[in-house]
Amino acid sequence: MAYSPRPLPPRSLPVPATVSPALKEAIAQPLQGAMEAIKQVPAREDKQAWQDLINSYDQTSEVLFQQLRQQFPVTLTQERIAGVNVYRVTPPVISPTNGQRILVHLHGGGYALAGGELATGEAILAAHYGQIEVISIDYRRPPDYPFPAALDDALAVWRELVTIYEVSRMGLFGTSAGGGLLLALVCQLRQLNLPLPAAIAPLSPWVDLTKTGDTYFTNEYVDRTAISYGGLLAGLAQLYAGELPLNHPFISPLYNDLEGLPPTLLISGTRDLVLSDTARLQRKLRQNNGVVDLQLFEGLSHAEYLYQFDAPESAEVFGELSQFFNRHLQ
Amino acid sequence: MAYSPRPLPPRSLPVPATVSPALKEAIAQPLQGAMEAIKQVPAREDKQAWQDLINSYDQTSEVLFQQLRQQFPVTLTQERIAGVNVYRVTPPVISPTNGQRILVHLHGGGYALAGGELATGEAILAAHYGQIEVISIDYRRPPDYPFPAALDDALAVWRELVTIYEVSRMGLFGTSAGGGLLLALVCQLRQLNLPLPAAIAPLSPWVDLTKTGDTYFTNEYVDRTAISYGGLLAGLAQLYAGELPLNHPFISPLYNDLEGLPPTLLISGTRDLVLSDTARLQRKLRQNNGVVDLQLFEGLSHAEYLYQFDAPESAEVFGELSQFFNRHLQ
Repeated sequence: MAYSPRPLPPRSLPVPATVSPALKEAIAQPLQGAMEAIKQVPAREDKQAWQDLINSYDQTSEVLFQQLRQQFPVTLTQERIAGVNVYRVTPPVISPTNGQRILVHLHGGGYALAGGELATGEAILAAHYGQIEVISIDYRRPPDYPFPAALDDALAVWRELVTIYEVSRMGLFGTSAGGGLLLALVCQLRQLNLPLPAAIAPLSPWVDLTKTGDTYFTNEYVDRTAISYGGLLAGLAQLYAGELPLNHPFISPLYNDLEGLPPTLLISGTRDLVLSDTARLQRKLRQNNGVVDLQLFEGLSHAEYLYQFDAPESAEVFGELSQFFNRHLQ
Repeated sequence: MAYSPRPLPPRSLPVPATVSPALKEAIAQPLQGAMEAIKQVPAREDKQAWQDLINSYDQTSEVLFQQLRQQFPVTLTQERIAGVNVYRVTPPVISPTNGQRILVHLHGGGYALAGGELATGEAILAAHYGQIEVISIDYRRPPDYPFPAALDDALAVWRELVTIYEVSRMGLFGTSAGGGLLLALVCQLRQLNLPLPAAIAPLSPWVDLTKTGDTYFTNEYVDRTAISYGGLLAGLAQLYAGELPLNHPFISPLYNDLEGLPPTLLISGTRDLVLSDTARLQRKLRQNNGVVDLQLFEGLSHAEYLYQFDAPESAEVFGELSQFFNRHLQ
């Protein structure tokens, strides 16, 4: 049955009184034309135009990444595992309990943005706050490599890593598209009867690439980082899926069978445009008797803890991540 | 520092594709002038006008309550405990593990609405889905009895109940104002060195009666049950607080010391006007090393699982409540 939409009156959204001073200042910034910019993206077939767009986004991210590198000194080692480019992130101090543990990281960026060294921003924060070694997988990306290249790369690296590390001491995490890829990988591992990680943390996960979740509507323009599904997100979804439908169970793993998954940490914010993916994922995992820990942050937009790494909210997100893996890894 | 608010354009909010058919149908209903009605409330001093308003709300709730009674047959026994009116809710089947357990219930309704037998709607659902006995406290309410009458009554009943039941087998739960009162009671118990319940479940809790949480702004008019802070909610807050400030730590227990609380279940929905209270409460509990289980429901408005008791979402909420107490009660 088709229902009529309900009109929402125009409103005025104050900066939340309930977030840290650092986050307040960030939220108060104008959106810098971002709301207009996201409306225009190239056609899926126009690879060069997409590559230019990706490069221009990555140039902006590079500035932020260098600040993060300064602030969180770690050793970054580029390696190849199973032919895939990865970065090993080693913090100055590894806690005694973490000596034989490893976290495997899959970065976000809509499957196309923030590759190369940029991939490691979140891995650096996790390594720093968790005092643990992290391997960040720089999977192949569109426009040249749509699905299943990212999943193939993640799978190849995982197959190799489980011959080196004890799987009960391995965790897997990632934000946004990284959280979606993580979930697709775990579904793939289960299907192939390969060893699963001891625990997983898809954060602000993008697990349904179709415009279906309710917060695409309720949090549109409320979220200041992802802002709206229209334009960039829709374009990135198409770019990754290629000829496949967006609701394919390995492209939108919310539609996969989610039985028998490892203990799962979910983190999102009340302003997250993709908050519905977190809620729907939690419900589906619980309906399959999954162990799920959901941490919700006041006033936080999509993946904002990665950009506002100065804010105490970011430290708290990575503190929760660290405690979660401490509870579930041997 | 004062920041400028951000203008939000008018939007059109579709009925979520991601909720059950029963919830879809409910969400599609027009708001029946509710958005206008909530804007006009009597002055705090006008007790008669408030009592008339409360009576008219309760008459509407009565229709729904009788449907719920039909659908979930339980035995309802009116008793007095420590001079306070309570209802004992006994389901047709009590599960073997629940034989010596008791759940204590504090109803919602902004501290003033839904007293008397109406108080027991949520208690009946919890008793039915949990196969457990529930005692629902019909605490005194404004306009005649503002704070601290409700807290005094809850405390008096609790003091008596802990002489009858083993505290390790007692849970405490309640929605909205019931969740706030619950939290105030637990803070009071801790302050008086009285035994705490083994586990607590403040659901869609109203733990800050000031208009501070961010979702009062982001989910205004998105939430279809509470709709907006202005009008009714603001009036009820004033009515309960009387001469005291709204941020008094026993009126808005989010501002109380929240250290050493029992394991806590929080449940809310992505459309909940008061979702920020849930997020902020979780953060504060976690900052005090609390054990917190948060379950988030897609597309659900404030306390909507109480009104849409036909929807599978409601069964799922009370299923989570039941499993939570099973995990934490002896």
